[in-house]
Amino acid sequence: MPTADGMSYAPKGKPAPVCQEGDFVFAAVGLDHGHIYGMCNGLTEAGGRLKWAYDPDPAKTAALAASFPGVQVARSEDEVLEDPGVQLVAGAAVPADHAALGMRVMAHGKDYFTDKPALTTLDQLAQARLAVESTGRKYAVYYSERVHVESAVLAGRLVREGALGRVLQVIGLGPHRANLASRPPWFFERERYGGILCDLGSHQVEQFLWFTGNSDARVVGSQVANYAHKDRPGLEDFGDCHLVGENGATGYFRVDWFTPDGLSGWGDGRTFILGTLGYMELRKYLNVGTPDGGNHIYLVDAGGEHHLSVSRQVGYPFFGELILDCLERTERAMPQAHTFKAAELCVVAEQEANRTE
Amino acid sequence: MPTADGMSYAPKGKPAPVCQEGDFVFAAVGLDHGHIYGMCNGLTEAGGRLKWAYDPDPAKTAALAASFPGVQVARSEDEVLEDPGVQLVAGAAVPADHAALGMRVMAHGKDYFTDKPALTTLDQLAQARLAVESTGRKYAVYYSERVHVESAVLAGRLVREGALGRVLQVIGLGPHRANLASRPPWFFERERYGGILCDLGSHQVEQFLWFTGNSDARVVGSQVANYAHKDRPGLEDFGDCHLVGENGATGYFRVDWFTPDGLSGWGDGRTFILGTLGYMELRKYLNVGTPDGGNHIYLVDAGGEHHLSVSRQVGYPFFGELILDCLERTERAMPQAHTFKAAELCVVAEQEANRTE
Repeated sequence: MPTADGMSYAPKGKPAPVCQEGDFVFAAVGLDHGHIYGMCNGLTEAGGRLKWAYDPDPAKTAALAASFPGVQVARSEDEVLEDPGVQLVAGAAVPADHAALGMRVMAHGKDYFTDKPALTTLDQLAQARLAVESTGRKYAVYYSERVHVESAVLAGRLVREGALGRVLQVIGLGPHRANLASRPPWFFERERYGGILCDLGSHQVEQFLWFTGNSDARVVGSQVANYAHKDRPGLEDFGDCHLVGENGATGYFRVDWFTPDGLSGWGDGRTFILGTLGYMELRKYLNVGTPDGGNHIYLVDAGGEHHLSVSRQVGYPFFGELILDCLERTERAMPQAHTFKAAELCVVAEQEANRTE
Repeated sequence: MPTADGMSYAPKGKPAPVCQEGDFVFAAVGLDHGHIYGMCNGLTEAGGRLKWAYDPDPAKTAALAASFPGVQVARSEDEVLEDPGVQLVAGAAVPADHAALGMRVMAHGKDYFTDKPALTTLDQLAQARLAVESTGRKYAVYYSERVHVESAVLAGRLVREGALGRVLQVIGLGPHRANLASRPPWFFERERYGGILCDLGSHQVEQFLWFTGNSDARVVGSQVANYAHKDRPGLEDFGDCHLVGENGATGYFRVDWFTPDGLSGWGDGRTFILGTLGYMELRKYLNVGTPDGGNHIYLVDAGGEHHLSVSRQVGYPFFGELILDCLERTERAMPQAHTFKAAELCVVAEQEANRTE
């Protein structure tokens, strides 16, 4: 499942339709990041029908169409937006363009589902919040490192059920393989990808809020660096951030592009969740030094040390919940306020970061 | 090796004398913390002779004497300090008293080796620095979570040899079992133990400086809390700290008293060291979810994922180096400036911490 660089990380789960064929029709517009494949996998497994694909680059459109038989190649973005049968547009444009695409989608009366990061500036956020309010449409975000990772999905459920007591802290390690040779130009342009704390950090901020049950938080401090890629001055190869939530829980995360070539996956992603009654460690994509694959939860409580290996046992309920939310105008998958708060905090962390070398 | 609460953690290694019998004579004064056993083990294995034991509490003195045959029970601290044959005094007094004991020891022309934390206030630090300068004596500190942990000793060696390239970051998790019922009164008096970032955090700050090769650093932010022990208002059960070193490397650590009863040891201590060419994870006291004991290093580099299980293979060179430093007036074990810088930063982290609930 994990791929060489994480860019085309696109988990496949079991089909678990939440609606009848044709009840939920969506389109894919803006195919710059391989995450669009995971987004489309998730929605189609949950019963959605991918009707259109469109990107200004015909090669990207053709590649996506080849992976989803029956999808139509649109001649323009407008052709998609003006199709009244399309209920939601999924997009994985360049991060700086996420918000603008979302505004166009929502202005056409459709829900929007973008790859992370939600957006890259506080101005975009203010506009997106206003547009959601004025149109009544959704601006959903693919925080894949939680919603498309079975160990993280189960961890959220266990936390909500009280397995750890009160959650006091979340630490996240989010290393990624750089694979610089295969990256598009925008990967090296800070304004375009939004900075490492906004881009990779968005996953981490979202997990902090989700696992601690916070609806707001404060950035205590954050740092970014370009330690080892001076020939790529727009690249930030390291970032970290220290948080405190309004409920008093604390958080810290590190994101980086230093996954060594010898690692068996694109990144040794970890999450540590500390509670008053126990703690959990997630080894998300691999269990370092073992051939045991990903999705390991180590849960320690009063009863002992429990190792849960949960690949192919949990599924990805986010996508079905999102479809139902769109059909029934509910907020099962992820509250809009949470989606935007995660976006706000990672943009703030990036803007206020100390730069180190 | 790990004990129920970590308070009497006292590793035993193989005898590896660096001097002849009688060349290095030391005493133990101030036996409030069980770490004194580890300190005396280390020095005697390295060839030192423990001549005297003294504590105002005769029960503590008798217990130590029973563990080290041949040791004499002193009638007073002065009896020890006035013995010209004693070259070094090891002490594990209550943290707030560490510095005062050290001043008396150094004033008597002897080297001092205290349990962590080095001291608890910046005033004490200023006095200790002056006294070291004026007497020429040593004020050494038992940062046991590095110098008395084989995986950490080997990690330091590998880092110095360049196994990770440039070290960019160190993250430390330092959970400890509370065992409140067995704790002495000073454990609940913040002024006496110095606060959690000073006490438990001192290990972590020292490791950050050591593994990153920094001689100075800045506290970016720090937090302390008493989340779950409101009936013990002087207890801090959680602390965390974000650092940046003068060489640009960053650090973060968390310390806490939330080890669950079901854990097989007193704490699931971890260290993550990220470098430009690879990273290391230390699982210091146990490998959670396995029966494999402690001292595991997972080293990932261009060549693959390497699992080193190193118990009883590395030893504890710190103690022999400290003895030689005392005999030959060198700084093999740990530079005095490093010892004091770690002390300074953990006191600053504690003083400047935001309090959360």
